[in-house]
Amino acid sequence: MNDKVKIAVDAMGGDNAPKKIIKGIELSLKQKKDNYFYLFGKKDLIENEVKNNNLVRENSEIIDAKDIISDDESPLAAAKKSKETSMWKSIEFLKNKKADITLSAGNTGAMLVISRLLLNNIKGINKPALAGLWPNQNNMNIVLDLGANIVCDEKNLCDFASMGSALFKSLFENEKPRVALLNVGLEENKGNDVLKKTFSIMKKNDIKNFDFTGYIEGNHIMDGDVDVIVTDGFTGNVALKTAEGTANFITKNLKKSLNKLSILFSYSSLKRFKNKLDPRKYNGAIFLGLESPLVKSHGATDSVGFAHSINVCNQIINANLIEKIKSNLITIDDKL
Amino acid sequence: MNDKVKIAVDAMGGDNAPKKIIKGIELSLKQKKDNYFYLFGKKDLIENEVKNNNLVRENSEIIDAKDIISDDESPLAAAKKSKETSMWKSIEFLKNKKADITLSAGNTGAMLVISRLLLNNIKGINKPALAGLWPNQNNMNIVLDLGANIVCDEKNLCDFASMGSALFKSLFENEKPRVALLNVGLEENKGNDVLKKTFSIMKKNDIKNFDFTGYIEGNHIMDGDVDVIVTDGFTGNVALKTAEGTANFITKNLKKSLNKLSILFSYSSLKRFKNKLDPRKYNGAIFLGLESPLVKSHGATDSVGFAHSINVCNQIINANLIEKIKSNLITIDDKL
Repeated sequence: MNDKVKIAVDAMGGDNAPKKIIKGIELSLKQKKDNYFYLFGKKDLIENEVKNNNLVRENSEIIDAKDIISDDESPLAAAKKSKETSMWKSIEFLKNKKADITLSAGNTGAMLVISRLLLNNIKGINKPALAGLWPNQNNMNIVLDLGANIVCDEKNLCDFASMGSALFKSLFENEKPRVALLNVGLEENKGNDVLKKTFSIMKKNDIKNFDFTGYIEGNHIMDGDVDVIVTDGFTGNVALKTAEGTANFITKNLKKSLNKLSILFSYSSLKRFKNKLDPRKYNGAIFLGLESPLVKSHGATDSVGFAHSINVCNQIINANLIEKIKSNLITIDDKL
Repeated sequence: MNDKVKIAVDAMGGDNAPKKIIKGIELSLKQKKDNYFYLFGKKDLIENEVKNNNLVRENSEIIDAKDIISDDESPLAAAKKSKETSMWKSIEFLKNKKADITLSAGNTGAMLVISRLLLNNIKGINKPALAGLWPNQNNMNIVLDLGANIVCDEKNLCDFASMGSALFKSLFENEKPRVALLNVGLEENKGNDVLKKTFSIMKKNDIKNFDFTGYIEGNHIMDGDVDVIVTDGFTGNVALKTAEGTANFITKNLKKSLNKLSILFSYSSLKRFKNKLDPRKYNGAIFLGLESPLVKSHGATDSVGFAHSINVCNQIINANLIEKIKSNLITIDDKL
């Protein structure tokens, strides 16, 4: 067990928990047995799911937590509520270095607040950020911040670039990720003051750990020419949700347009298409910038999606993400 | 001619101008002859397109303009360049009340700068905004600002709500459009300070001319539950371009996935699908808040798209958009 990645799992978060969670762990263990799971939540409910599942039982330990944070609770209320929630306890366990990483499919806002309460920032980082995987023509890129910080300054955006490129290196074996700033145009004078300042800091600095490629516009996020896209949490959240809404709108209208015969004739290639865009493959937003990493699985995902986010946890720890972030940080104080 | 809508057309703006422009005017005249066109640009080039086209010749007049603003010129440089550009002259003509509206497929930034230089704001409006049509499950909604104002305050956003709902009424015969603010969540405490202040002003005011429905998230823009979506120009521009990029990404990948037989079997319904999402139908961003309205056609659109934007010009003038904006304005000074 010593060389396994130790994952503290909030087993009560998200739809169909803990059933989906245990099923996701089982799927993941069937592929590889290189993780060990600490399952936080109502002991009887979890035991009921695990008792006939040898694979999960042998690779996990249940830790009782009396309370649950629901999805509709405000983050602050949820954080104040009790130290006996499955989410709080799974993050406290991480703080006490008993796990390498925490994974939850529960209330995102609560996870951000509780983890910031319990864990220290990495030295040099003022604001941690939520990073997500975004499909593109070649493979995937990383976009951050997706909503942890509504207002950001140039120091924050530079940190997001350092953290996002460290994450990209951890997930995709790339020594020099291409990093761009999301803006409304490509010219140096476009955008708000924070973007202009960030641009000028990044241009001036002799950055060794990633390639700063300048600005990128929303219509090119999915082109695959850039690996990491940096933005404030407000813009990132709107962009992500707008992309989701557009994708849903198109596929819903398309389904109506294809008759059964067409679907039959293109079955295998439509399946490939669906598979390429399967949101479960992009499941797992990573909360970066704290002394230990956390992963947020989508609440509505199923066990396959949850297994994907377990895989993200494993990759992050094995690639030594936190060390990569530390060595990626750019010193900008003297340039401001 | 007196009861016709008089449109000042920058005949040199956009790809394939003036050919596409004249062809678009012809398409529009074939449907209805209720517009009269003033064509600004290089006289010989335009005459060459018009000389064998009786329909366009009879319903237009060419006004020579020596210079052209290209797409890659910076807005300020373009505005300073010369008063002999087709764009400048077409807007000056509007200022002098010789036309009801100006239409250009040229450089957007230049159009915003020149029109703000030449035209006054509607009394009570501090910042004009660029509004666009966005497809949804039912029909279309309006989103503004799409990029005219990078930084906005609560007064601006309230004005955008007034202007957007006036535009919606003008285009879709609706007495009480539903207006929402784009945000990262639905709860009253979500978002930045400007959004919170705008929300509180709109909630408190006894608004008679539209229904304020609260916040909306990016993934619900296309649901069709709201008619007007208000946001600052930075966020609106990123959202619009991200939606465009996502739509392109999906349709490109989909095309690869459908074989010829499938396309054949679903030909007519795929055609309906394509038709519903045809960007040419949503062509024509409207610049609102100046004493006279201007319409910006997409530079890359074809003559069909340009004809759609002519139709938008006609509807706006016949519906008395400017008067509708004036009567929609909400007084917010005493509530701030």
